[in-house]
Amino acid sequence: MKLTIDELSVFCKKKGFIYPSSEIYGGMSGFFDYGPLGVELKNSIKAEWWKAHVHDRDDVVGIDGSIITNPKVWVASGHVGSFTDAILECGKCGSKTRADHFIEDKLKMDTAGLPLEQINSIVKSHKLKCGKCGSAFKDAAGFNLMFQTNVGPAEGSTSYLRPETAQVIFADFRQVTDTTRIKLPFGIAQIGKAFRNEISPRDFLFRCREFEQMEMEYFVSPDQANSCPYVNEVLDYELLVLSAEMQQKKHAAKKMKIREALDKKVIKTQWHAYWLAFEHKWFSSLGISHDNMRIRQHFDEEKSHYALDTWDIEYNFPFGWKELQGMANRTDYDLSQHMKHSGKDLSYYDEEKKARVTPHVVVEPSQGVERAFLAFVNEAYNDDKERGNIVLKLHPKLAPYKAAVFPLVSNKPELTSKAKEVYLSIKPEFNIYWDASGSIGRRYARADETGVPACITVDFKTLEDDTVTVRSRDTTKQERVKISELKKALTDFLNKK
Amino acid sequence: MKLTIDELSVFCKKKGFIYPSSEIYGGMSGFFDYGPLGVELKNSIKAEWWKAHVHDRDDVVGIDGSIITNPKVWVASGHVGSFTDAILECGKCGSKTRADHFIEDKLKMDTAGLPLEQINSIVKSHKLKCGKCGSAFKDAAGFNLMFQTNVGPAEGSTSYLRPETAQVIFADFRQVTDTTRIKLPFGIAQIGKAFRNEISPRDFLFRCREFEQMEMEYFVSPDQANSCPYVNEVLDYELLVLSAEMQQKKHAAKKMKIREALDKKVIKTQWHAYWLAFEHKWFSSLGISHDNMRIRQHFDEEKSHYALDTWDIEYNFPFGWKELQGMANRTDYDLSQHMKHSGKDLSYYDEEKKARVTPHVVVEPSQGVERAFLAFVNEAYNDDKERGNIVLKLHPKLAPYKAAVFPLVSNKPELTSKAKEVYLSIKPEFNIYWDASGSIGRRYARADETGVPACITVDFKTLEDDTVTVRSRDTTKQERVKISELKKALTDFLNKK
Repeated sequence: MKLTIDELSVFCKKKGFIYPSSEIYGGMSGFFDYGPLGVELKNSIKAEWWKAHVHDRDDVVGIDGSIITNPKVWVASGHVGSFTDAILECGKCGSKTRADHFIEDKLKMDTAGLPLEQINSIVKSHKLKCGKCGSAFKDAAGFNLMFQTNVGPAEGSTSYLRPETAQVIFADFRQVTDTTRIKLPFGIAQIGKAFRNEISPRDFLFRCREFEQMEMEYFVSPDQANSCPYVNEVLDYELLVLSAEMQQKKHAAKKMKIREALDKKVIKTQWHAYWLAFEHKWFSSLGISHDNMRIRQHFDEEKSHYALDTWDIEYNFPFGWKELQGMANRTDYDLSQHMKHSGKDLSYYDEEKKARVTPHVVVEPSQGVERAFLAFVNEAYNDDKERGNIVLKLHPKLAPYKAAVFPLVSNKPELTSKAKEVYLSIKPEFNIYWDASGSIGRRYARADETGVPACITVDFKTLEDDTVTVRSRDTTKQERVKISELKKALTDFLNKK
Repeated sequence: MKLTIDELSVFCKKKGFIYPSSEIYGGMSGFFDYGPLGVELKNSIKAEWWKAHVHDRDDVVGIDGSIITNPKVWVASGHVGSFTDAILECGKCGSKTRADHFIEDKLKMDTAGLPLEQINSIVKSHKLKCGKCGSAFKDAAGFNLMFQTNVGPAEGSTSYLRPETAQVIFADFRQVTDTTRIKLPFGIAQIGKAFRNEISPRDFLFRCREFEQMEMEYFVSPDQANSCPYVNEVLDYELLVLSAEMQQKKHAAKKMKIREALDKKVIKTQWHAYWLAFEHKWFSSLGISHDNMRIRQHFDEEKSHYALDTWDIEYNFPFGWKELQGMANRTDYDLSQHMKHSGKDLSYYDEEKKARVTPHVVVEPSQGVERAFLAFVNEAYNDDKERGNIVLKLHPKLAPYKAAVFPLVSNKPELTSKAKEVYLSIKPEFNIYWDASGSIGRRYARADETGVPACITVDFKTLEDDTVTVRSRDTTKQERVKISELKKALTDFLNKK
């Protein structure tokens, strides 16, 4: 049976992964805190993303920009003018609700992004009334989703908390090309907080007001927009594909190799194909099953106005298939906008062509850390009836604790001191914990529930032959390992997956 | 000759460490972006801090709370009421300036934290006038340093960007004790952004409006407030000490062992002594020299009202000795305030004593990542006249790139392909880069300037005997190493320091 999002949130709270923010004061809708286990999982997700996207590659560098910037960034990007949701306000009780969610709940109709006039005519023709008091709504109004603030002591110095990290990359594009030696095609990656003043945050971590993004803008010379030198690496990679055409024809998602998707022009550019496979692989390598992921193309009317083509990697969340990562082809839209608004030259000097070009962002893989967090925990969650406890089968690279060390029983000083010795010898290299309280079975169960891949137990045999047992979370099988070989055995065990 | 802060900021920009935020739009005072090298250094500082404070210890867990919280957190903490700076506004031209900075510049008098009446009487008695137009100031006014914003579509839902991470730890205290098995004495650590709407940001990264904190609240049973079980580990640790009394007597800072400082009651509690040494050691282990650090006690009138005793670790910055890390004894002030305001029980059940206690925060080591960043870069910066280039002697654990791989010359395909092979073989385990452009001397100089600890060169001898040279950034000495042993040699080299 599928886990519900509420069950998942209760589990996350109980085990110290996620708390509602400032709960002692009644919390704050759309804001969450990461507890002791949550912060470890989150940091591991970020570290794995950074390694795969920045450290392991020669063509990507990172930046970390500020959350508050000169407000002109958001004028140029279009966010000040049009980053809005339609909002319905009750004419009587004044309660406010997000129009598209309200209409979807009532009429099962997707109105996201529709102009206000169309929203109003739907509200009127279906006689929709306020959910709280039953009175009529006022005309729908646009509500800007950026959080505003005032910078410095002067009045009217309005700025914004960035609603995405992407624009900070575009604003810094020239700085990066001026101070590094990177050549097209290349990417600039960034991890950092972003804020959206959602009218109705919902689905636990899925739609928060404060969240963290992992984004990369990948810049390519305009005449290379369809030739990716790495595409051969992924041609045989297979994934579930759902194109706009397939959706129109009501076809189900289909397993397809990248080669086939390119040959049949289901995916239009080599760059999109390469990066979709790359990102899909990244999720898969950390434990998301292929059956629970698919790539879905946006309809023309669903795409952002600047996007030439957009695909999402979707995950089968407890509440259905939803975006886990978006990947738009933004062309040269953003750099052009910033050139226009700043008056600065953001073109790139191509040494081979001896010419300046405005690079195209052929793909922008963009994802929220929170959605990845949700997907990894959901995927790992196993209610093991046989064991009688939950087993959180997180990938060892993501597991908050890599191992635990136990004395078999806690009332034998010789076992405890030997176990402490083992513990201290491996602690500097692995994030592990010590547990000597309760029965050994209880301690294994506690470790299972928080995703600890390996439990190391010092028992009476240890005192004779300097071996310990290493128990696998996933199989419950135990192997005896010499203490002198424990570090290597644990390293191998954690890398096995 | 000492580097100036301006020279440091020019260097940081030129090499891609730090850019002014949104510079194409004229920037934004007090906001900075980390460039490709800066983000790596910053991430390493954070990772080393987390390892030392959380992973390597049994008595500390981490959290990662939200930046925007229920505003009652900041009412309870006192920030809404009194987190203000005195501001002087010109009666004629309306320009605003921070009173304490203005008075310090004009009169060399420290007025930080003084009541407004006192500021006004100083301004009047010294006939201080507006720096821009020379007219008289209005009466000084309090300016709250928290950035405000509005959450959700309802008017008047004011909240704040947290001005410190600490209060989020207190607000989550009960959640952490309820969902982990940690026992007193223990710490809760957090790394994250904080925001202060400084009236006049200055000194480059030293006083920004957006910055990142690394903080820990260390909780102890009230009757254990002076007995630290770890104090023996640091008794022989020596550091420069400047107590409040020494400052009053105009004595210079004095080298002292922790043992002596405790015996002579210069440092009042074992906890303060232990953590001051621990933190001092952390900076020292990553390259800050003992001569450039000292611990300085706050005067009674300088301390925050809630603090029983406060010491800073100060660093000898380009603009003088200033706080690198603060460490207050906050007693049970914060938990008590939050209990009072929330009506929730935040006491801790002591199983041994069978009683509930309100723990004391005996120390709160609190530092800005930006100040650590500045100190590490300043300390590492060497203008090497003999080499004719800057050598950035960052600790290998902090260096953005750990190594670079070069073919000796770039026009010999056999060298290039061999060097590429070497490069690819070690790339998965180390953050390294490839450079084949320009003379080998120019490539060494570039590596020196960005702090690369080791340069690996493939030369003609490599083709004969499968050895490469490894050049040390700090000594310029080269050693020949077998390619088969390169990974181990590089690991040893990076850990040697």
